[in-house]
Amino acid sequence: MSILIKQVLLQDQRVDVFIENKHFSRIAPSLDVVADTIIDGKSFAILPAFYNTHTHAAMTLMRSYADDIELFTWLHDHIWPLETGLTEEGVYHGTRLAALEMIKSGTVYFNDMYWYPLGAARAVEEMGLRADISLVLIDAGDPGKSEEQMRCADEVFSHEKDFSGRVRFTFGPHAMYTVSDKTLRKCAECAREQNRMVQIHVSETKTEVENSLKKFGLRPVEYLDSTGLLGPHVIAVHCLHLNDNDWDILKRSGATISHCPISNMKLSSGKFQYHLAMEHGIPLTLGTDGASSNNSLSMLDEMKFVALRAKADSGDPTSAPAQQVFDMATRNGAKAVGLNAGRIEEGLLADCMLINLNHHRLIPSGHLISNMVYSADAECIDTVICDGKILMQNRIVPNEAEIIRGAEKTYQDLIKH
Amino acid sequence: MSILIKQVLLQDQRVDVFIENKHFSRIAPSLDVVADTIIDGKSFAILPAFYNTHTHAAMTLMRSYADDIELFTWLHDHIWPLETGLTEEGVYHGTRLAALEMIKSGTVYFNDMYWYPLGAARAVEEMGLRADISLVLIDAGDPGKSEEQMRCADEVFSHEKDFSGRVRFTFGPHAMYTVSDKTLRKCAECAREQNRMVQIHVSETKTEVENSLKKFGLRPVEYLDSTGLLGPHVIAVHCLHLNDNDWDILKRSGATISHCPISNMKLSSGKFQYHLAMEHGIPLTLGTDGASSNNSLSMLDEMKFVALRAKADSGDPTSAPAQQVFDMATRNGAKAVGLNAGRIEEGLLADCMLINLNHHRLIPSGHLISNMVYSADAECIDTVICDGKILMQNRIVPNEAEIIRGAEKTYQDLIKH
Repeated sequence: MSILIKQVLLQDQRVDVFIENKHFSRIAPSLDVVADTIIDGKSFAILPAFYNTHTHAAMTLMRSYADDIELFTWLHDHIWPLETGLTEEGVYHGTRLAALEMIKSGTVYFNDMYWYPLGAARAVEEMGLRADISLVLIDAGDPGKSEEQMRCADEVFSHEKDFSGRVRFTFGPHAMYTVSDKTLRKCAECAREQNRMVQIHVSETKTEVENSLKKFGLRPVEYLDSTGLLGPHVIAVHCLHLNDNDWDILKRSGATISHCPISNMKLSSGKFQYHLAMEHGIPLTLGTDGASSNNSLSMLDEMKFVALRAKADSGDPTSAPAQQVFDMATRNGAKAVGLNAGRIEEGLLADCMLINLNHHRLIPSGHLISNMVYSADAECIDTVICDGKILMQNRIVPNEAEIIRGAEKTYQDLIKH
Repeated sequence: MSILIKQVLLQDQRVDVFIENKHFSRIAPSLDVVADTIIDGKSFAILPAFYNTHTHAAMTLMRSYADDIELFTWLHDHIWPLETGLTEEGVYHGTRLAALEMIKSGTVYFNDMYWYPLGAARAVEEMGLRADISLVLIDAGDPGKSEEQMRCADEVFSHEKDFSGRVRFTFGPHAMYTVSDKTLRKCAECAREQNRMVQIHVSETKTEVENSLKKFGLRPVEYLDSTGLLGPHVIAVHCLHLNDNDWDILKRSGATISHCPISNMKLSSGKFQYHLAMEHGIPLTLGTDGASSNNSLSMLDEMKFVALRAKADSGDPTSAPAQQVFDMATRNGAKAVGLNAGRIEEGLLADCMLINLNHHRLIPSGHLISNMVYSADAECIDTVICDGKILMQNRIVPNEAEIIRGAEKTYQDLIKH
């Protein structure tokens, strides 16, 4: 399948963009080629799509379920009891709803951490976007469960061949306080051997740091470093409570941070030291976290929040400028997870979105990136293409009503459970 | 013109809502009435619309023009030079664009402070929403200009009869540091005599407080109180840097605060003490500020920001819960500006929005207010009604393309100027 986008705005130029074999094949002021699908790009700009480096996709099922509650109560009295009723089929429906919302808001990739990875994988496969689906490791610090955890991972990974290249399975050790030293070391070893990404929550709360110091005499980043887990294949999520040594370790390791500003604010988890991440040159990407602590999955929202909170916290309105934030949400994300994507260039994977330049929120014209970060909402995005296929056009995603019905029914069954 | 909305969701009940003579005339489980327009409400919930208590509407023309810049440079090198080219016609086009965006995101009222009030008034009249349009008073502290300022106000107010009741003219003394004591006192007197609202920027920056103490030996709130300006008809905008005495004065005066969380963050102006406003029981409402410091005019964005920043700043995830924030954006706003509106009840002005319950961002169902605050975007709003007239239906606002062309051309002329 090939696509020719005619006379679309790419930065300051009108170009033809030819997509074939999943890649941007040719980009030029004018192309004389035959294509299966032709899109008139005159009213559109072409931009890279978004890469969401941390979420719990199927938690769309718990969107706005029990909000404005203290974390412990929220988890113990509301989320965990509800989750006991989840099945692989439920996760499939929840992940489809998440994928629908992500496509509608320009996201083509997400880094998932949740239960029933095969349910999530099936949803991703069908919906046409990309995901790294991590097998969650949680042994409550009991090294006796380590073997079982890793067997479980192997079993899931054995299904990788059933899916297209858009679906990858990775390791998701939940956090240093829920996974034993033995499992972390085993995970570190297997991830390197099998060339898999790892995502892990790191230093999300002050309590996590205090308990780590009490138990191990090490801060969470120091402790994780001691297990050999950290490396360039690791997405360290949150990283709110770091000291100088933590920053140095992260930098040396080559790990990427997934910053989730909305979740951090909603749960009152702490301040992300944006300027320190920049000073240390740590690869910085954006994640929405799950819908239950956000409550949307829009990278547009996330961009506005990261830019504004960085300015508010630093007292410096020049910090986190629009282009830097847009790059975090696009090219930085793609690079961090090893995708040859995130820019509109010949040879790269054909992931992109077409922006409706006549949308009122993008008027006046001429400031597209600022408008995307500070003003746009999902309605500004007309078309989303992933892996060379159209996932949304004219804001229509196939089967939307059926996806919504499936998720709603799953939720109704869950609360009856 | 009358409207019957059949079987729409109002809180937990399905009802028929009959609108005639600009008001909610009857609301009941089933109504047998004849209406000019019938809306099938089965897939909708009915909610009060939004009241935006502080903006500079025509600054949509400067949306995303020169972002991420320090305030002084931004004003002196970018905004003010551009504004010198503005005309009444330009303000008309900018205000139409603002009104379009506001209607599209559920807002039916805005409290405006900008140049060429008659241009703004004409746009509001045409677009069908409500506005208080303030005559900006700025005399750079020169009491010699006071008479001229007030004459100018009288001249504008004399046109009030040319507009419907949806358009009201009010006083907008810019701030205590740009308006002389004489003009403030005169404004205080006239506002009371003529029964007009007043809006004024108050304690937006630390510098404002420091300079006020230096010049007058009083803090801005104390100083304004000494001029007799404060009262229940005053919208005090921002109010970021207040001490205990300031809070007490505000409370005693009966003034309302217009909190603009996005603008405060974008310009790094300071922290709003949300919990103190609550503790003092000060009427609290929400404003978007102008598009150039936001850069959208969506009250949905504003609600998410106020809730999340209150949680982040206080470290308490239970602060600023969804219903409280939704009330700020709706009924509190309407009440503060003396409109008998802001709730869906018989006898109140017929301002409302119909929410598309099948929108993916509102799934699962059953948490509508949380979803509106934390998850919804403008696309969730299908229909907006103001003063008993439909301003948007099926997300279509009449003349949208023409409004956009007018604003774009105005901007292109401005930058050529």
